[in-house]
Amino acid sequence: MSEFRPPVADLTFALEHVVGYDQIAQLPGFEHADHDTVVEILSEAGGFMAEVVAPTNRAGDLEGSRLNADGTVTTPTGFKEAYAAFVEAGWGSVPLPEEFGGGGFPRTIGLALQELEMEANMAFALAPLLTQGAIEALLGYGTDEQKQQWLPKMVSGEWAGTMNLTEPHAGSDVGALTTKAVKRADGTYGITGQKIFITFGDHDLSEQIVHLVLARTPDAPAGTKGISIFIVPKFLVNDDGSLGERNGVHTVGVEHKMGIHGSPTCVLSYEDATGYLVGDENIGMRIMFVMMNSARLSVGTQGLAVAERAYQQSLDYAKERVQGRAIGATESSPIIDFPDVRRMLMTQKAYIAALRRMMLLNAVNVDISTHHPDAATRARADEIVGLLTPICKSFGTDLGNELTSLALQIHGGMGFIEETGVAQHYRDVRIAAIYEGTNGIQAADLIGRKLPVRDGASALEFIASMRELDGELAAAGEEFASIRTQLTAQLDTLEQTTMWMLRTGPTDPNSALSGSSPYLRIWGLVVGGWLMAKSALGARGLDADGIAEAQLPLARFYAEQLLPQAAGLVGAVTAGSHDLFALDADTLADRAPSRARV
Amino acid sequence: MSEFRPPVADLTFALEHVVGYDQIAQLPGFEHADHDTVVEILSEAGGFMAEVVAPTNRAGDLEGSRLNADGTVTTPTGFKEAYAAFVEAGWGSVPLPEEFGGGGFPRTIGLALQELEMEANMAFALAPLLTQGAIEALLGYGTDEQKQQWLPKMVSGEWAGTMNLTEPHAGSDVGALTTKAVKRADGTYGITGQKIFITFGDHDLSEQIVHLVLARTPDAPAGTKGISIFIVPKFLVNDDGSLGERNGVHTVGVEHKMGIHGSPTCVLSYEDATGYLVGDENIGMRIMFVMMNSARLSVGTQGLAVAERAYQQSLDYAKERVQGRAIGATESSPIIDFPDVRRMLMTQKAYIAALRRMMLLNAVNVDISTHHPDAATRARADEIVGLLTPICKSFGTDLGNELTSLALQIHGGMGFIEETGVAQHYRDVRIAAIYEGTNGIQAADLIGRKLPVRDGASALEFIASMRELDGELAAAGEEFASIRTQLTAQLDTLEQTTMWMLRTGPTDPNSALSGSSPYLRIWGLVVGGWLMAKSALGARGLDADGIAEAQLPLARFYAEQLLPQAAGLVGAVTAGSHDLFALDADTLADRAPSRARV
Repeated sequence: MSEFRPPVADLTFALEHVVGYDQIAQLPGFEHADHDTVVEILSEAGGFMAEVVAPTNRAGDLEGSRLNADGTVTTPTGFKEAYAAFVEAGWGSVPLPEEFGGGGFPRTIGLALQELEMEANMAFALAPLLTQGAIEALLGYGTDEQKQQWLPKMVSGEWAGTMNLTEPHAGSDVGALTTKAVKRADGTYGITGQKIFITFGDHDLSEQIVHLVLARTPDAPAGTKGISIFIVPKFLVNDDGSLGERNGVHTVGVEHKMGIHGSPTCVLSYEDATGYLVGDENIGMRIMFVMMNSARLSVGTQGLAVAERAYQQSLDYAKERVQGRAIGATESSPIIDFPDVRRMLMTQKAYIAALRRMMLLNAVNVDISTHHPDAATRARADEIVGLLTPICKSFGTDLGNELTSLALQIHGGMGFIEETGVAQHYRDVRIAAIYEGTNGIQAADLIGRKLPVRDGASALEFIASMRELDGELAAAGEEFASIRTQLTAQLDTLEQTTMWMLRTGPTDPNSALSGSSPYLRIWGLVVGGWLMAKSALGARGLDADGIAEAQLPLARFYAEQLLPQAAGLVGAVTAGSHDLFALDADTLADRAPSRARV
Repeated sequence: MSEFRPPVADLTFALEHVVGYDQIAQLPGFEHADHDTVVEILSEAGGFMAEVVAPTNRAGDLEGSRLNADGTVTTPTGFKEAYAAFVEAGWGSVPLPEEFGGGGFPRTIGLALQELEMEANMAFALAPLLTQGAIEALLGYGTDEQKQQWLPKMVSGEWAGTMNLTEPHAGSDVGALTTKAVKRADGTYGITGQKIFITFGDHDLSEQIVHLVLARTPDAPAGTKGISIFIVPKFLVNDDGSLGERNGVHTVGVEHKMGIHGSPTCVLSYEDATGYLVGDENIGMRIMFVMMNSARLSVGTQGLAVAERAYQQSLDYAKERVQGRAIGATESSPIIDFPDVRRMLMTQKAYIAALRRMMLLNAVNVDISTHHPDAATRARADEIVGLLTPICKSFGTDLGNELTSLALQIHGGMGFIEETGVAQHYRDVRIAAIYEGTNGIQAADLIGRKLPVRDGASALEFIASMRELDGELAAAGEEFASIRTQLTAQLDTLEQTTMWMLRTGPTDPNSALSGSSPYLRIWGLVVGGWLMAKSALGARGLDADGIAEAQLPLARFYAEQLLPQAAGLVGAVTAGSHDLFALDADTLADRAPSRARV
């Protein structure tokens, strides 16, 4: 197992030279979050994650979280101690409001911390991730009293939070949920129903768990318009703030999953559990989207984070493993000297760098959208967040799968042996393309909700803004020529397919949906290429340290060898729905066997 | 878990209408293997695999094969009974010579049987697969006496076989192995050393295991030129053919792997074990290649087979799972009605069909190369086998990973839960891109050994032969127009990149190797597109049963939506090695952190 090296240097480079973090540090309320302070925080956090959290990753996989006979859930060896140290250090509270004990840092920095945490142990990092989602919902929609009651201990991490959406027949279709919420005389609600796939739905890390539960009041409208959201704590809280009796929520199962074994994925049964309404009745979906948009960016970052960890391991292996002779070598060579291994390493590194910049750019826009003094600037940043979020989520997690596969491949036969550890990353990250809205749902969101914003002007303006790099690339000379050529070509691809989507979507939504996933992939490839080009430009004139000198070769590799794939996807985007629906279910199943003919 | 439906109808369609099986049935020795007989055999075999072998797949994953304290290995529940039934039915012997008790059927039919077997249980199917490899080596290089002694019981399956290549520091670099073989006075050899990653290296399925072991005699030349190959049975065999005392080979470990848990991957220790030389000393590599080429085609077929099984499961789920409403639907829809789910199903089905045709075409050429009366025809078929084998292996297994991932994705959150069963396919198939020569090694083989055949003429002639379909496509009318356009365009891509490889390889092998993997992918995409076009043409005029009517939509989907990806890979093929090697190992590891700048 190789040691985890927190990629703090690349994070700080990207913040400073690519995504314009300096604008954030100048926003009102973020004055204390200057670059030097941020570098210090990330360095310290990186050390903490490497020393305290990363060592729990393997035990988490081997032991898993388990449901005991008495209905309690025990997390793997080391999780409890690591979580206590995490709370003690206050890492979860860094991006949360000072009013409730947080550090008042931007979301951008919170996301960078999440990346480091997820690199150390993806399963473990889900506990604070879900807590943060619940906090964001309460910050947005809770009453002052609710905020005072729940937030301080959630912000500190002493109390954990969860998000309870899914039911057996209500997964992607949240509106189909049937959990009931019946109002009582005292203003609280009695919650009854079963929830599945509840991440860290129960555990032994914190004394209290604050569930945010989607449910339906008896007279609620059908579908998503009739969903309300409730705080349902594991333990009722006494007036003095101490924990009282057990609430009517119980863990009836912990799933046996392919990965993230350390994270208990629970089946929770609610039996007239006491719940407190958040906001008004029937606005639950609006509140959920607050949590979900934030969580989608975090999940995209999971793809990147697990890929980074696996990449590091594959790099270490490639340097150490001696096997055969490279061209021109007179002795046995480490496999890093073989071109195809280099291709796998560079592919990982270039995509990881692109993804990191994409996630941070999204987060920077989150911060602008919430903290910029100018309303128009906030509104535009909010549009950009809306546009980038499905791309970050899907492209990040698809690549999470593909890149961990490359890391495994570099290990040869050892990659398939569990003791090596790289297989865990491949298994762990696989869920990220599914949860928080499957990647197909992200693609539908991109074309169905985000492209239509201002009749397409929002997306087209973003494309135009990417084209603005062209002058700088032209002036940057011969070394940037192929980057410029490819970026222009694939921006054209993106624009053409965007125009096709804008034309097709309103009249033939099935055709637009048919091309939505490859279309999202084109966006990911192009935004990544643009950010890598920015990165190479940003590195000019800096001392040629490791990060700075890597940017031009990475950007060129990306532009010449990865970015052109976008053009290869145009056919899949624009083919329409006809052939996708040409075969009926029986034919898809070969139900009518060919008769033998001689 | 969905029921396994053996894809016999598509296999027989492909044999009859796409890959020209009729030529094989006319070859001397294969007269009894006519189409009707083959249909009957495959139908019966499909039933057997579905009823007897498939039910063992899940227990195989859950229990795994295990090493007992006494050094024996126990396979999972049901494996022993299924193997006994397999031997009783004689399925393993179908493509083996009648002289030793086989059915004397072509390799093509043997491969179709292997596909069905691997669909039922990939881990289980490895036992007969390895036995067949050992048989092929003995058929090619054993003495008559050796053949009489070992083959009848191996052909029947009563005795199993293995291939012992890998050692801890000799994986891809077989020539680095150090296992010693010291000749004794009686002509036998004493074999001493340790072998790892030995598939079915020990088990309880058969009374005897015949290991074929690569080892080095004391005076052997270094590297691959000094390797010899030995029969090393688990039990010595008495003169009367009964089993005698235990030979000096012992199992010291069974690996804990990510998948194919049912297949015991053994560490074997040889301590002066008695071995019998096969062929001459120092020709071991030549014999190994006999086994390996055959095994590589079988492993490519594994990618296809596991993908087929996962596809079936995802199709069943997509039909049953009701969630949300499709465009225009007034009630909840099964998810098969959603375009993005359709895309995932069609992508699986089209690639699987293309792969099946590619594997069978390869096998047809194996049969021509061994059985055709005309020497020139045999020689050309042998060239085609050489060319197609690395493509079948790599493209088949890369797609095995990608397609099982799509099958898992269709299941949403349920795909990540092990009880659903689809995750097993994703884990199982992952090894196939690694063993029998990693996919990177296949790509190196393609450009380093196969392209140079007759200075490129062999490959270019194959490309030209694919172009011969153009006239038929042109005459087939409007429905085939997009297939024709795309096939021509991507044949151009293939030809251009081939010319680049032929120019570059001799002078700059590192640059050629740098592009070898994406180049192989182009081959796979194009050969697949060509075969699907042939398939659509072959289906014309047939009764519109399920298989026949599916071919045109599948071919068009492939041509319009999958095949164009080839063009997107040209940059990666022709970029050269410069950027791949631009970053040194420290820079790849971000060892020199960026200094903080404000």
